[in-house]
Amino acid sequence: MTDWFDEVAWNAEGLAPAIAQDAASGEVLMLAWMSRESLERTVETGEAVYWSRSRGRLWRKGETSGHVQTVVEIRLDCDADAALLRIESVGGVACHTGRRRCFFRRLDASSGARSWVATDPVLEQPGAFRDG
Amino acid sequence: MTDWFDEVAWNAEGLAPAIAQDAASGEVLMLAWMSRESLERTVETGEAVYWSRSRGRLWRKGETSGHVQTVVEIRLDCDADAALLRIESVGGVACHTGRRRCFFRRLDASSGARSWVATDPVLEQPGAFRDG
Repeated sequence: MTDWFDEVAWNAEGLAPAIAQDAASGEVLMLAWMSRESLERTVETGEAVYWSRSRGRLWRKGETSGHVQTVVEIRLDCDADAALLRIESVGGVACHTGRRRCFFRRLDASSGARSWVATDPVLEQPGAFRDG
Repeated sequence: MTDWFDEVAWNAEGLAPAIAQDAASGEVLMLAWMSRESLERTVETGEAVYWSRSRGRLWRKGETSGHVQTVVEIRLDCDADAALLRIESVGGVACHTGRRRCFFRRLDASSGARSWVATDPVLEQPGAFRDG
């Protein structure tokens, strides 16, 4: 019998991208990465645990900032190589920059000269840790 | 001067993950990959063009299925290594399995024995092409 986490098509580094979406508003908050162990811990604890590629270790979201993500639902895509987490966020700040979501820049193509423009306000002083 | 697409932190393969989200419903439809050229073409044409890793070529979404994605907004995350596309989908079928979205499986942990359960109906006969 295949374990449920063996059905995930982990990449060569043993990781899969995971999208965190606010369960209430539908807003896409961030894209992070999961390892087998982080997925298992997420399911066991009911709180999002990612794999930090920069730090090379498990990363319980909110471990330093307090902005824990409670997992409402975990979904897998057709290729089984990407996950979608519908979550409830403690404090409503998902980004380490102190913003509600990591996708705070929008491509502005209105003027011909294209650029990425920050559209979301900083709600909280960014912490010393990359975590957010 | 740095071009706007040089600000994207492309990975070692020259790609970045792109999340497609339905602009009206907020539903996360799929995760695909973009190259510099696919991002440029997306902006130029206003329709989502991805990089197909399995076929190793540009992939205009809907080129075989007709389910073109009109791009409402393109966002970039804090690390500049993931994009979010808010799109309007022609026909409302994003997945090559004929479903509305690729994330059609949900982790069922209710019984103790966990498994991925398909929750979304097939709306359309899957095409011969992987495209969807």
